[in-house]
Amino acid sequence: MDKKITKDVEKTTSKTTSKPVRRTPRFSGQKTAPALKISFLGGVGEIGKNMMALEYGNDMIIIDAGLTFPSEDMPGIDMIIPDSNYLLQNKDRIKGLLVTHGHEDHIGAIPYLLQNINVPIYATRLSCALIENKLKEHKKIKAKLVSIKPKQTIKLGVFSIEFVKVTHSIGGAVGFAITTPAGVYFHTGDFKVDYTPIDGEGMDLARLSEINKKGVLLLTADSTNAERPGFSISEAKVGKTIDAIFSQHKQKRIIVATFASNIYRVQQLLNIAEKYGRKIAFSGRSMINVCETASKLGDLKFNKENVIDITRVDKYPDGEICILSTGTQGEARSALTRMAEGDFNKIEIGENDLIILSSSAIPGNEKAINNVINLLYKKGAEVIYESLAEVHTSGHAYQEELKTLHALLKPKFFIPCHGEYRHLKAHANLAESMGVPKQNIVVPDLGDQITITKNTIKKTGVVPFGSLLIDGIGVSEMGSTVLRDRMQLSEEGVCVVVISISSATGALTSKPDIITRGFIYNNSNEVNTIEDAKNIVINTISQSDFKSQDWSLIKSNIRKNLTGFFAREIKCRPMVIPVILETK
Amino acid sequence: MDKKITKDVEKTTSKTTSKPVRRTPRFSGQKTAPALKISFLGGVGEIGKNMMALEYGNDMIIIDAGLTFPSEDMPGIDMIIPDSNYLLQNKDRIKGLLVTHGHEDHIGAIPYLLQNINVPIYATRLSCALIENKLKEHKKIKAKLVSIKPKQTIKLGVFSIEFVKVTHSIGGAVGFAITTPAGVYFHTGDFKVDYTPIDGEGMDLARLSEINKKGVLLLTADSTNAERPGFSISEAKVGKTIDAIFSQHKQKRIIVATFASNIYRVQQLLNIAEKYGRKIAFSGRSMINVCETASKLGDLKFNKENVIDITRVDKYPDGEICILSTGTQGEARSALTRMAEGDFNKIEIGENDLIILSSSAIPGNEKAINNVINLLYKKGAEVIYESLAEVHTSGHAYQEELKTLHALLKPKFFIPCHGEYRHLKAHANLAESMGVPKQNIVVPDLGDQITITKNTIKKTGVVPFGSLLIDGIGVSEMGSTVLRDRMQLSEEGVCVVVISISSATGALTSKPDIITRGFIYNNSNEVNTIEDAKNIVINTISQSDFKSQDWSLIKSNIRKNLTGFFAREIKCRPMVIPVILETK
Repeated sequence: MDKKITKDVEKTTSKTTSKPVRRTPRFSGQKTAPALKISFLGGVGEIGKNMMALEYGNDMIIIDAGLTFPSEDMPGIDMIIPDSNYLLQNKDRIKGLLVTHGHEDHIGAIPYLLQNINVPIYATRLSCALIENKLKEHKKIKAKLVSIKPKQTIKLGVFSIEFVKVTHSIGGAVGFAITTPAGVYFHTGDFKVDYTPIDGEGMDLARLSEINKKGVLLLTADSTNAERPGFSISEAKVGKTIDAIFSQHKQKRIIVATFASNIYRVQQLLNIAEKYGRKIAFSGRSMINVCETASKLGDLKFNKENVIDITRVDKYPDGEICILSTGTQGEARSALTRMAEGDFNKIEIGENDLIILSSSAIPGNEKAINNVINLLYKKGAEVIYESLAEVHTSGHAYQEELKTLHALLKPKFFIPCHGEYRHLKAHANLAESMGVPKQNIVVPDLGDQITITKNTIKKTGVVPFGSLLIDGIGVSEMGSTVLRDRMQLSEEGVCVVVISISSATGALTSKPDIITRGFIYNNSNEVNTIEDAKNIVINTISQSDFKSQDWSLIKSNIRKNLTGFFAREIKCRPMVIPVILETK
Repeated sequence: MDKKITKDVEKTTSKTTSKPVRRTPRFSGQKTAPALKISFLGGVGEIGKNMMALEYGNDMIIIDAGLTFPSEDMPGIDMIIPDSNYLLQNKDRIKGLLVTHGHEDHIGAIPYLLQNINVPIYATRLSCALIENKLKEHKKIKAKLVSIKPKQTIKLGVFSIEFVKVTHSIGGAVGFAITTPAGVYFHTGDFKVDYTPIDGEGMDLARLSEINKKGVLLLTADSTNAERPGFSISEAKVGKTIDAIFSQHKQKRIIVATFASNIYRVQQLLNIAEKYGRKIAFSGRSMINVCETASKLGDLKFNKENVIDITRVDKYPDGEICILSTGTQGEARSALTRMAEGDFNKIEIGENDLIILSSSAIPGNEKAINNVINLLYKKGAEVIYESLAEVHTSGHAYQEELKTLHALLKPKFFIPCHGEYRHLKAHANLAESMGVPKQNIVVPDLGDQITITKNTIKKTGVVPFGSLLIDGIGVSEMGSTVLRDRMQLSEEGVCVVVISISSATGALTSKPDIITRGFIYNNSNEVNTIEDAKNIVINTISQSDFKSQDWSLIKSNIRKNLTGFFAREIKCRPMVIPVILETK
């Protein structure tokens, strides 16, 4: 059966790279055959930093290498990437990195991965372009990027990988049908089922059904929206809503903020603007970059004569202008935020402006976005956003779409991925309702290695895994002292105590100096606090046993006494840093 | 007309406090009559810290004194309260504080207000009890609390105030129908229109319609959900959903987490538990306190014999237990969070547990709540929450409910309140659609004083307003140095440089000492950073003009050079604190 599938996959191949499938007798049908192993290095039990390792015998491939953004308890951290020690240990076995699509949570860790592991990257045209843009910021890194089309199959060691087009909120998204000696494995990547896609192609459901005919051993699939009943709105429906808004606001200037990488949305906006006789101005660096890149690749099609520079917007009547802008998340320096704050010299927002936020809030950004909306309203503009009209849709499959996937592929084994534990659990329940036996479903934890043979699936180990926190050039792990110190500093401030002690007598040679940052408000309540604190330091030293010259004990006593004093007197627990200088 | 209304209001009065309405000729009908003024000290353009001042002639009353919780850019801050300087300036004119209901965003600032202004507080029975509980934590404060029943009218100076029952997510919520010399003013407080209320009474719609007959000059109303179309779910519907869940899980132990102050929800849960033959155990301090208080007042009715102590839960089969718990927001030390973490010695969560989160996330708490849900799932428990079933409802009116309010009261003038600018704007639009002329609607900003006469409404001034940040015993204003320092400390850490200089020669008497917290990760990249930094300090001092003895210039140079060095070398910008010690 395996052989048949392989042949079939080869038929659909328009171009193949490298060597043929290696298939020695020890892999086929024997009871001692090495099995298919999947290790989850990210993206399960969490949203973001998606990364998996797939291996069979001596061959290994990586699927995605994404980042995630820090939470509130990680101040100053730029991003979080998966620990890749397991990959490093198996460096020589890795045949390539497969990329499902170009969102940061799937490609953001690539520059860091490539610093240590030099593997070719296989991705669709647009994904390759986005990875290339990203690598430009890391000049020293050289990457071998191979652009693969949907329906094309590549061979990496024992694996034969077919790229299968899926719909998502970015162009060029694919899933993978991977033929392995154990059977066919399908991984969806991030996806939704959109029956009226903008590019007229949509998710390749026919191909899924063909793959099913040969039998699918294993499915791993996006669980982000597994708790949501029904279907997600089609991208085309979003276009219709926006079209109606344009038709109802012919005299107004229209500004639309959306995610630059959602080229389907951008394509629709370009079409609608043209339909209503509006010139288009791009605003914001990523909007300009992505549109340029996608347009060069042919992934975005529009009449270039219809595009004007943002500085020329004032030359046209309001009703003939449509501005496409970044800033959907209320980012501090984005075009839209600056417009809202009146700090964007090219555009002045007024009563004849209509702003459409064709986007949703990434959790944690709600307050910043609300702030922008409120400021725009205050300038007299009209603002339309997701809670007022269907001007956005999710890129992830809802329950009925997941059921379509399961019905088409009918996998023997199932592993939910891409989601918090609750989402994975909901997807596992859905799979069971679609006929996958309970014992054939494994809900993975981070680091789990799951082994699949023709007849079994089980957790067989835990590989090295974790989160690396990137901070400038520094790299740290969760729970590091640096972060614990920052949390204390941020909530309580710092108190530096400088003491000069005679090394001969152990007596203070001058009054202690106390410098505070971030905890004394200078209210009337706190007037004498610093003077009192100095006296506590003086008393602590006079009571210390100088003979031992145990500075660390003296420091620890100062820390203890001052911390207690501040807690009692002003209900604060600043970080106390005693500095002792010995003088002669 | 005014006189008639006053009489009518008096008729409904079951008990009145203090003096009769003062009505000298200068107030009635004369062109120079002093007008009704409302000053918004909180709760407009923001969610939370609700506080308004109402005045006419020499008389002033306060409505609510609430707090709000700090956002991420205010580390270490406990709460935020409104600046009450305007009230302080008019201390002697204030006749009383009216409280709509006992939620923190309406009563949380009372202890701070009472420190400076000693006014009697008028509130319903349950609100009084909750204020009393709160004041217990501030022992020095004495308050005069007056319990008022719905339909009762009190007179404070020229104002005659009728308490009108409204439905909300807490018991004892009221709006106020305030008869003033200018006309009748109605303020809703937080409310929803629930036609099937749990206490069988609900919002007093009949009374609203009676008040309308006499003519309503002005309405101010809750705008929190003004963007949401339709009706909010009735509290009774939530009960039915939960009843169904109980009936489907007869063998399981059921734990319900909800807001303790939502006594309607708690009442329903107590009834349902009893119906299914389950003993009830309360868990969490606020749940125990509020239930005790409400039960004493008769606002919560249940069979005491059906309640058991949480420590006795194990004595009963799972199917005969219902635990009512706090912790709906994933709070670190709450009962539910500790159960999820396996750190609550009274309850061990397992596969036979069903947990219902009968609550919604307060914005900003989503991650913590998700974490608790994921942990509960991992322990094998079943978890039901708002996105899975109708186990919670909002306490604020949706659009159709707001329309009911407007249709019943038909105010001449309208001011939306309780909401961000976007919500106020949406409510203003709704009011217009309900027939209030656009020029009769004012959307207020914080600090606005709005003057209303029989025929006009306009913004006539701005009173002192602002946010006070409470931190231990410290009080600060927005944008204070303390907070700016904390933000820098939290994102970048701190670097203390200790330098000992000979006061005779200006030379260093020893090598500089550098102490860092929160920014050096000790990666291989950073090995020599501290040594290099010390050399930069040495160079800076040797290049300084010692003769001037301008220590602040030397410090500023050290700060500048080290900041530049760290930014270049390790891409961090710690707070640099130079300390110079002069030695002989």
